[in-house]
Amino acid sequence: MSSYWSELIRGLEPYVPGEQPKDRQYIKLNTNENPYPPSPVVLEAIREHTNQELRLYPDPTGDILRTEVADYYQVEKNNVFVGNGSDEVLAFAFITFFKQAKPVFYPDISYSFYPVYSKFMEIEAVTVPLTADFQINLADYPVDNGGIIFANPNAPTGLSLPLGQIETLLQRNTGSVVLVDEAYIDFGGSSCIPLIKKYPNLLVTQTLSKSRSLAGLRIGYAVGSAELIEGLERAKNSFNSYTLDRLALVAGAAAMRDRDYLDTTCRAVMATREWVVGALERLKFAVVPSAANFVFIRHQERFAEDLFSELRQRGVLVRYFKLPRIDNYLRVTIGTDQEMQELIRQLQAILGSK
Amino acid sequence: MSSYWSELIRGLEPYVPGEQPKDRQYIKLNTNENPYPPSPVVLEAIREHTNQELRLYPDPTGDILRTEVADYYQVEKNNVFVGNGSDEVLAFAFITFFKQAKPVFYPDISYSFYPVYSKFMEIEAVTVPLTADFQINLADYPVDNGGIIFANPNAPTGLSLPLGQIETLLQRNTGSVVLVDEAYIDFGGSSCIPLIKKYPNLLVTQTLSKSRSLAGLRIGYAVGSAELIEGLERAKNSFNSYTLDRLALVAGAAAMRDRDYLDTTCRAVMATREWVVGALERLKFAVVPSAANFVFIRHQERFAEDLFSELRQRGVLVRYFKLPRIDNYLRVTIGTDQEMQELIRQLQAILGSK
Repeated sequence: MSSYWSELIRGLEPYVPGEQPKDRQYIKLNTNENPYPPSPVVLEAIREHTNQELRLYPDPTGDILRTEVADYYQVEKNNVFVGNGSDEVLAFAFITFFKQAKPVFYPDISYSFYPVYSKFMEIEAVTVPLTADFQINLADYPVDNGGIIFANPNAPTGLSLPLGQIETLLQRNTGSVVLVDEAYIDFGGSSCIPLIKKYPNLLVTQTLSKSRSLAGLRIGYAVGSAELIEGLERAKNSFNSYTLDRLALVAGAAAMRDRDYLDTTCRAVMATREWVVGALERLKFAVVPSAANFVFIRHQERFAEDLFSELRQRGVLVRYFKLPRIDNYLRVTIGTDQEMQELIRQLQAILGSK
Repeated sequence: MSSYWSELIRGLEPYVPGEQPKDRQYIKLNTNENPYPPSPVVLEAIREHTNQELRLYPDPTGDILRTEVADYYQVEKNNVFVGNGSDEVLAFAFITFFKQAKPVFYPDISYSFYPVYSKFMEIEAVTVPLTADFQINLADYPVDNGGIIFANPNAPTGLSLPLGQIETLLQRNTGSVVLVDEAYIDFGGSSCIPLIKKYPNLLVTQTLSKSRSLAGLRIGYAVGSAELIEGLERAKNSFNSYTLDRLALVAGAAAMRDRDYLDTTCRAVMATREWVVGALERLKFAVVPSAANFVFIRHQERFAEDLFSELRQRGVLVRYFKLPRIDNYLRVTIGTDQEMQELIRQLQAILGSK
């Protein structure tokens, strides 16, 4: 602790991202990256713009990307905000909508960045427990709130919510923003973006890091009513005017355009997920039903933390969260078929050796 | 104003970046971009990394770039923090060091983002007037403060401070952070980075947007004691873990390595600046002595706002700030010799026509 740090900074517990180890080659199933490369159209767009124009600032409003997102979801450009990864979009959303006299509500088990944002922005937060089988029950969220945020599908569980339940919440919760974090929506969930036309307080965030294989470029967006988007722009322009660089803007736009590639790679991930679930169940894992590019699993006999370490030694990285209620679970990203076959082989070796 | 915005967001006056018009081709002398392209080594590094690895998250600590910055300035890697443009680095610095019980002090005329950060982060700020000839007088800054920030060379004046004066300030101001914003340092100023070894409360920010011709890629950094850098990392990891994308990291590292190219292009800008100053003076402009890639000028007979509009109509964009004390000045970026010849020709036409 340094005496030069503000009291706020001294009191923080920053987010710890999944490790990106450099010591050896791992089968990397720990940060929910897509096992397939970005669309060739994306790489071509980057090559085309790798030129002297990089000396010039990017468009601060990111219009080329906003236009493509709007086109994809059949909304207007002023319904779209773009940012440097959906983490940044969420950060701006917390300060813009949730810094209120009343607390923001979110699930006790969800994306572990939510409590970090709350603390950093001095926002009071109340966690609402998931049900015993890890479901979000939106009826548990009180009407009197300074905002509601949840992930759909939820992380790290992978469980998705039907749109009808979200719309029921929106019908009764009109006084504050409801933010649905759809980072994993393309692997089996249903986006609630069409509902933004009916509910001016609904904001939906998505990312190009998962389904569009672009974690390395940091591109996310939010879709909502024009008044919500304008609020996000105000926050951004008080922090950093140019958050998305020239190459990310053209790459993101190209990725949104290539719908066939998105469909093909998402279908491949879902097909792999299906057989992996069966194989894990045969190895005595309980598997939470997943609509995401990961599975959340618990072995019926072995401690998750031990399995995590043993897999790591054998060159397979998965994610382990030492947190209440989920400290006996592992979150395993769906990789290629070959990677997942290797995971199963290593688990067989570990479990057989006891 | 939306009822869903937080009170904080409703009260903001966001930063307005220099315009990036799309209606026609301009000679663009309004946002201090470098007229020369990035180093060929930079473009080559981007091309080399435009591949399937973009599906993977970048290194959240940006080590490849931090190592090159450290090498360039002969400091250690843990003396370097990297961010998505120096605007983002400054934003994290404000919240990390200046959110204190006492106010932060900065010049009344300087980078216009400082008051925006202060308001966004609810930091009390006191402005210290520049002298009548626009000099920063560090003796005017009181000992009792929650931090001091100034730009060297200052913007939009272009005036630089001798290192001796900065060291005198550091000798007496040991209780709070002194942040020197060196966005324009490579065009004639002297960096105070060597002083970080003596003063643990000195933080220096720089950008690759100006001297290294990479405004389009959003890369900035801060150099200071390890304890200051650790504070910035805490802030970043409470906001967005991966702020720099894979291509920006390799491009930035390559740009730091190509020192010859930096020298050549900076010398070219300075040579152009020299003759432009003479030509402007012959047109009856008073020119503030500049150590930056822009000049700050006032005509002895014509209003700056009128000249700004007339130049714009003639296809030349410069920057005009409608702010106290400087509302009769224009800030003009140094472009190529050809661009500046065209500026002078247009000014001759405008001034001759009266």
